Amino acid sequence: MDIKSYMDGVGREARAASRLMARADTASKDRALEAIAAAILKNSHKLREANALDIEGAKSRNLEPAMIDRLTLTEKGISSMAEGLIQIAALPDPVGEIEDLKFRPSGIQVGRMRVPLGVIGIIYESRPNVTADAAALCLKSGNAAILRGGSEALHSNRAIAELVHMGLREAGLPESAVQVVATSDRAAVGELITMRDYVDVIVPRGGKGLIERIMNEATIPMIKHLHGVCHVYIDDSADFEKAMRISINAKTQRYGTCNTMETLLVSEKVASGFLPPLCEVYTQKGVELRGDDAARAIFPMNAATEEDWETEYLAPILSIRIVKDIDEAMDHIHKYGSQHTDAIVTEDYSKARRFLREVDSSSVMVNASTRFADGFEYGLGAEIGISTDKIHARGPVGLEGLTSRKYVVLGDGQVRS
Amino acid sequence: MDIKSYMDGVGREARAASRLMARADTASKDRALEAIAAAILKNSHKLREANALDIEGAKSRNLEPAMIDRLTLTEKGISSMAEGLIQIAALPDPVGEIEDLKFRPSGIQVGRMRVPLGVIGIIYESRPNVTADAAALCLKSGNAAILRGGSEALHSNRAIAELVHMGLREAGLPESAVQVVATSDRAAVGELITMRDYVDVIVPRGGKGLIERIMNEATIPMIKHLHGVCHVYIDDSADFEKAMRISINAKTQRYGTCNTMETLLVSEKVASGFLPPLCEVYTQKGVELRGDDAARAIFPMNAATEEDWETEYLAPILSIRIVKDIDEAMDHIHKYGSQHTDAIVTEDYSKARRFLREVDSSSVMVNASTRFADGFEYGLGAEIGISTDKIHARGPVGLEGLTSRKYVVLGDGQVRS
Repeated sequence: MDIKSYMDGVGREARAASRLMARADTASKDRALEAIAAAILKNSHKLREANALDIEGAKSRNLEPAMIDRLTLTEKGISSMAEGLIQIAALPDPVGEIEDLKFRPSGIQVGRMRVPLGVIGIIYESRPNVTADAAALCLKSGNAAILRGGSEALHSNRAIAELVHMGLREAGLPESAVQVVATSDRAAVGELITMRDYVDVIVPRGGKGLIERIMNEATIPMIKHLHGVCHVYIDDSADFEKAMRISINAKTQRYGTCNTMETLLVSEKVASGFLPPLCEVYTQKGVELRGDDAARAIFPMNAATEEDWETEYLAPILSIRIVKDIDEAMDHIHKYGSQHTDAIVTEDYSKARRFLREVDSSSVMVNASTRFADGFEYGLGAEIGISTDKIHARGPVGLEGLTSRKYVVLGDGQVRS
Repeated sequence: MDIKSYMDGVGREARAASRLMARADTASKDRALEAIAAAILKNSHKLREANALDIEGAKSRNLEPAMIDRLTLTEKGISSMAEGLIQIAALPDPVGEIEDLKFRPSGIQVGRMRVPLGVIGIIYESRPNVTADAAALCLKSGNAAILRGGSEALHSNRAIAELVHMGLREAGLPESAVQVVATSDRAAVGELITMRDYVDVIVPRGGKGLIERIMNEATIPMIKHLHGVCHVYIDDSADFEKAMRISINAKTQRYGTCNTMETLLVSEKVASGFLPPLCEVYTQKGVELRGDDAARAIFPMNAATEEDWETEYLAPILSIRIVKDIDEAMDHIHKYGSQHTDAIVTEDYSKARRFLREVDSSSVMVNASTRFADGFEYGLGAEIGISTDKIHARGPVGLEGLTSRKYVVLGDGQVRS
């Protein structure tokens, strides 16, 4: 069978399943999630066997150790996968919630009901735990999911999908509510992102290269995370101690995450007092510093190039720039940022208010570390990713981001005059 | 200058203006709207002169009378354009509203602030009043707009744009916050819908053909209205009098609107009593009826073909089908509908509840005419269109639909542990 007809069949089944999922009651969805979690724990040996095949394949193709690491399912990884499912089962069901129901002068009542998006296509790289995570979030939010993981993880993903199907069956829900694309042919992605009749939204998860490729070809709306070039601006009215704490945490608490600070902007009024002790700490922690001329005059560091300002290092590297004031800081963020997460450290009320209003990023913070930009920290319970898009959902996307709202109108025979 | 560099310049200016618009205060935006309204009233003769050139051109190219009608700016049309601007000025400003601000265990406060989308590209056919309408909605919601109207209306649109610029200047806002694409070259649309760096969302307004063409080429998210194949289902437990009233209103109150009923579904249990008196009324009003065999056995009418069920007539034509029950009705709506607006007439609580939950349309109604699906009737104050999309905004789209929400985080030096 050719890829087009195969994907067509997957799409058709997903669309049919999505109708059943949309009307599934909360108890059935939670029962399915719990059954999947139990099946995962019970069959951890099978998962590890399937995973071993993937790892073998990856090794024989000489893939990078970091990639093999992401691919590997440990016992601990398997239990935290099951734990994640239980947590999602415990979250409130967003579907069916009616908000703002109000009477209108015509006598009708108008409100908005939260509803699933329908069919969600998820494209991700070789992390098998995403298969369970993404399936669970789609399931709880009443959507059908088509999952297309990296080809290196195909055995693992299929094994997880089997357990997901067991759980769905046990709860009386359609198995095709979660389908794993069973081919490593790249043409399958091309089909998935253009099957407008069957897929309502695409969630790509992966590096910037993958996302950009998909952006250029997709004709289906996306909820996506492009990259995170996050800034912290130290204002001249910043509290020294808070500024130190936040600057250190935002860069060094974890290097490889998208909400890690990549560029530090410092007001010229406080730079000479603030940078030396801070840069000492960075240097001790092994962070490579790259600064503009003004920063380098204060503390010895490499020279930052134009490219540095727009780079998401995901590594112990930090670029530092001295700016005149909040305006120059916001101009820099506007020009080089990725609209992900940006923070100001200040005790000045009006500057805090301006920064919050004027910086156009998915998360804008005052006196807090950029590392807080996260679904769990924000109280969403779980996240399918952090969106850097502007429409639909910005920032961490949880269950709500996988739903939409339709209008409901309740009348008593009203007609329009 | 070639089209690509021209559009590039338009995009760059719009992006710069969008930053200023995002931070513009409510009073300035309202002052601009009021100044534009005043300028339109004061310069109505200039608008009519420009419009006369367009009408002349349209006549010389033998365009259809209906098109010339839409193109024509009457004195009355001009005052209602100004009236619309005043109404939009009077609406509450959505920008900057903060919702759900809550403390988290870490000590940070997390909330969501409503923010403009940025730059909105609007593509529409030859109705010059859309130029003022769309500009006003974008302006009030803090966005910059790039307007690309039908080439037949270019003189009118330019004249309106001049007045919009006067108003913006008067309020101290950037003129390039509203730009009318000053070329009738179709390549400009191709640029507009792919300039991802400069345009955040495309709102196409026009016939299904135009929208589909744009859907295939756009790489920018859209808020769009494809078509409206709206249904009313008369359940066997419907109140006869309400069913009559709603069926007549939904079809005959206006024929050319997207929320007009195109297919009537009737429960087989009540069809023989309900259809004859209803069809008499339709026939008197000159509505052509096209039914399935069961309907034709009850009242004489033409035979409906498969094509009829998926056709948006926008005309005094109605297709009628007899269905077994609510499930068959919902199956029909699912198969042939356009997810726009669908209504049930019933006195049965459980069926009303099921219909509301299970029908996946942007507006779902119980005992009310589909004609209510409208921004004004829903209390939005104004609308830029009715979205049949699933992500971002569904149904009538007002100011809120032209905004998004970013996360705001207020801290006191918190860092992540």
